[in-house]
Amino acid sequence: MNIQQIQSASQRLRDNKAFELFVVTIIILSALLIGAKTYHIPPSVMSMIKWLDVAITLIFLFEIVVRFIAEPNKKRFFHNGWNVFDTLVVVISLIPVDDTEMALIGRLVRIFRVLRMISIIPELRTLLNSLLRALPQLGYVLLLMFIIFYIYAAVGATFFAHINPDLWGDISISMLTLFRVMTFEDWTDVMYETMGTYPLSWIYYLTFIFLTAFAFLNMVIGIVVNVLEDEHARERAEQEEADGTPTLEDLQQEIRELKALIQSQQRSS
Amino acid sequence: MNIQQIQSASQRLRDNKAFELFVVTIIILSALLIGAKTYHIPPSVMSMIKWLDVAITLIFLFEIVVRFIAEPNKKRFFHNGWNVFDTLVVVISLIPVDDTEMALIGRLVRIFRVLRMISIIPELRTLLNSLLRALPQLGYVLLLMFIIFYIYAAVGATFFAHINPDLWGDISISMLTLFRVMTFEDWTDVMYETMGTYPLSWIYYLTFIFLTAFAFLNMVIGIVVNVLEDEHARERAEQEEADGTPTLEDLQQEIRELKALIQSQQRSS
Amino acid sequence: MNIQQIQSASQRLRDNKAFELFVVTIIILSALLIGAKTYHIPPSVMSMIKWLDVAITLIFLFEIVVRFIAEPNKKRFFHNGWNVFDTLVVVISLIPVDDTEMALIGRLVRIFRVLRMISIIPELRTLLNSLLRALPQLGYVLLLMFIIFYIYAAVGATFFAHINPDLWGDISISMLTLFRVMTFEDWTDVMYETMGTYPLSWIYYLTFIFLTAFAFLNMVIGIVVNVLEDEHARERAEQEEADGTPTLEDLQQEIRELKALIQSQQRSS
Amino acid sequence: MNIQQIQSASQRLRDNKAFELFVVTIIILSALLIGAKTYHIPPSVMSMIKWLDVAITLIFLFEIVVRFIAEPNKKRFFHNGWNVFDTLVVVISLIPVDDTEMALIGRLVRIFRVLRMISIIPELRTLLNSLLRALPQLGYVLLLMFIIFYIYAAVGATFFAHINPDLWGDISISMLTLFRVMTFEDWTDVMYETMGTYPLSWIYYLTFIFLTAFAFLNMVIGIVVNVLEDEHARERAEQEEADGTPTLEDLQQEIRELKALIQSQQRSS
Repeated sequence: MNIQQIQSASQRLRDNKAFELFVVTIIILSALLIGAKTYHIPPSVMSMIKWLDVAITLIFLFEIVVRFIAEPNKKRFFHNGWNVFDTLVVVISLIPVDDTEMALIGRLVRIFRVLRMISIIPELRTLLNSLLRALPQLGYVLLLMFIIFYIYAAVGATFFAHINPDLWGDISISMLTLFRVMTFEDWTDVMYETMGTYPLSWIYYLTFIFLTAFAFLNMVIGIVVNVLEDEHARERAEQEEADGTPTLEDLQQEIRELKALIQSQQRSS
Repeated sequence: MNIQQIQSASQRLRDNKAFELFVVTIIILSALLIGAKTYHIPPSVMSMIKWLDVAITLIFLFEIVVRFIAEPNKKRFFHNGWNVFDTLVVVISLIPVDDTEMALIGRLVRIFRVLRMISIIPELRTLLNSLLRALPQLGYVLLLMFIIFYIYAAVGATFFAHINPDLWGDISISMLTLFRVMTFEDWTDVMYETMGTYPLSWIYYLTFIFLTAFAFLNMVIGIVVNVLEDEHARERAEQEEADGTPTLEDLQQEIRELKALIQSQQRSS
Repeated sequence: MNIQQIQSASQRLRDNKAFELFVVTIIILSALLIGAKTYHIPPSVMSMIKWLDVAITLIFLFEIVVRFIAEPNKKRFFHNGWNVFDTLVVVISLIPVDDTEMALIGRLVRIFRVLRMISIIPELRTLLNSLLRALPQLGYVLLLMFIIFYIYAAVGATFFAHINPDLWGDISISMLTLFRVMTFEDWTDVMYETMGTYPLSWIYYLTFIFLTAFAFLNMVIGIVVNVLEDEHARERAEQEEADGTPTLEDLQQEIRELKALIQSQQRSS
Repeated sequence: MNIQQIQSASQRLRDNKAFELFVVTIIILSALLIGAKTYHIPPSVMSMIKWLDVAITLIFLFEIVVRFIAEPNKKRFFHNGWNVFDTLVVVISLIPVDDTEMALIGRLVRIFRVLRMISIIPELRTLLNSLLRALPQLGYVLLLMFIIFYIYAAVGATFFAHINPDLWGDISISMLTLFRVMTFEDWTDVMYETMGTYPLSWIYYLTFIFLTAFAFLNMVIGIVVNVLEDEHARERAEQEEADGTPTLEDLQQEIRELKALIQSQQRSS
């Protein structure tokens, strides 16, 4: 059995519906195991879970190897972000975890295996992609929001630090406090405290809430709605083209042909 | 009086506006009775309510029988989900409730009779249908959200369980706590507690809030807006067709006829 | 000076820009007086405020009389809801308030005079009208929401009344508690309490929150967005018509004329 | 070197990419310094920060002078709001701050220097402009909202002032309390307190929440979505025009030419 045959066998296995379903089942089982470990479980079950964990790691390793062999162009395999992610998760899972520090990282990696669900289900990938496509537009909104946060936090740390250092001690604590105010979480307690010293400090909070919570949240909504609509319009345009609906250009073309026809008629007569 | 006559009589009764209004009145009365029972009421009124309850059950039974007889195709009757729901509610209401366990179920079924309001009013049915139509699209968003919740809950239960077992004891409690964080309900108390042990745990909460509350809520809004717009566009397209507004295809057709006309003219000359 | 002259003089006064500005100033002054009365003010200023109040009432009376006389068709005057509202507010303001009960109503009516701002500024009237236009569509959403509230309140009052009568005593208190849950205001306190008796009662709260806060709020947003878009599309369509942009119908008409022309040509040759 | 040469040298410096990058770096450094000052820092570092601060002020002064000289039309320089803002910030930074009162203003001005980030990055300027374009439409919504707040605050101050003067003492405190209710921040505590005296006062809160939080927030969302869509449509229209897609007008024009052609043919034959 030469390399060519191994590759085509791998491709057949990778594209097999039953194999795909089996992998999804293993991912769900792996997720359930992670959940189970957070409960108080007897040691006998715990050791069984450990063996299952090893089995899952090996199956994932087998699956990633199959997918790697099935890929005709080995270089392109790692161009796909999800393939890199899958490989990393499997490789780190293979490292034996003995001392406690590494054990924590090992547990975290096992948790992130649940994310493989997204790489397996195409609809989830599409959803994530549409979110990522909105990111460049959202990026500047987030930057503008960060500037507003930074300025208000600097003002807050300058004036309110002596009132309550736990909330306004330095600029990073102030930003956390302002995020809390933005989520309306007990923001009046924060405000009433500073109003004791600066009675007009409600202006600080109200302008901040207006600038962030209202205007910008709406901005974000607007952008997401826009991106979704674009997506939608694009799909509709593609379908219309596929359906062969005549466009204004087609009509213009036909009218011009008609004109040429009449002109040729005129010349001939 | 043969079966045919009974069926057509049932149909006439079912489609009678007065009968429909009578049934709506009975449903509203049944809803009011359910509300009345939650108040402290004298025993004399209580026994009257019981008799009314029996009367309502019998009227509902009568109505469902009329609707069943009126239906020409008996099989199709149970293909309609609302008919199945109505029948179930009436049948379970008929079971005599003596012991306390069954009494609770009996009370619950009586409460669900209020849902019959939706099956009677067409506008409410339309509203519910448009919600259900958005469900497949929402389904994947909810699945993605569940995966995010699951991963964060696993991380939370792993690291924070020893800090506060009431909030982070196991993965299901952690998910409930995270839902609370997502609704911004006293989420800073939860955060300040874990920040006592892990000062950087604010990253955990902020990324979680950004991923769920912001990005995904907007996603949901976007989808609902889209579904509503589609609905709207569909209605408008239908109306335009009904109005006989010429389409681009009609114009193309007419231009082609013109061309054929000129060409025939050319040939004849 | 006959009646005709009085009417045209009234019309001229009503349409006078200076008079309109004067009335707006008086409305703002009346609003400021209402605000001033909530502060602790010395008796001397208080008596001055009372005289100002009488003056404002008389000016409003004069203005409404002018507007009534200026109207050519007296019957149509009361067809306008804002005219009826203005008249009522002025007439009730005229009733002398001596005993304490009537005094409260008198104060309320004076507060509602601020609403005259809406009847004076056309942009605010437009805004309110667009809200009112969305109402029929929102009506059924609110009815559906009310049914959900009623059912959940009935279930809550049945199962949780013995746990905390202050929150779940009867169906109306339960509905208020559920509204509180919908606004996420300390809803976890309410939930943790009932979870002590029924550990699965979190299902009750989570399904309720999903049904109301998420799905329906989005519904409302969707409808409002739709209404605003319709409004927008209507305006654009009107403008396009005014601009004389040719429609598809115009093109069809022209092509048909062309056809008739060619056909007549064919016949003549 | 004459004036003309200085101006063109300034222009070259202003449009130099490296210089622009240098200015952005300085703005970020200035922002970091502001943040650093809110921490407890040793005096030696503090004096270094002071020297850096002077250096930044001088660089900003140099940059604004360069931009001023580079501008061919000196009058137009101050027509640009951002130029005025930049000049003001630099000039106030130059004033020596000795006594404590002026020191605070000096610190505030240094904080506002972070806003220069917006004037430098074009995408942020665009974002801000689109927000400002939505302002006129939002203005009337805010006015309507203010009227609702004012009326409810007047009613609240009239009826609830004796229950809790801290929350309902006068009309301005009442408005702050109502803003708190609108953000759902512990609003039930406020409500339960007044329900002790007026059991029906829940109507006051519920109608207020419905009027403001629901209807109007949606209104705002609707307007922002609209503005963004307009923006979008405008861009698309511009691109279509640039692409030379034929419009209905073009088609109409061509059909008319065809008609004239045929008519001339008819006449000639």
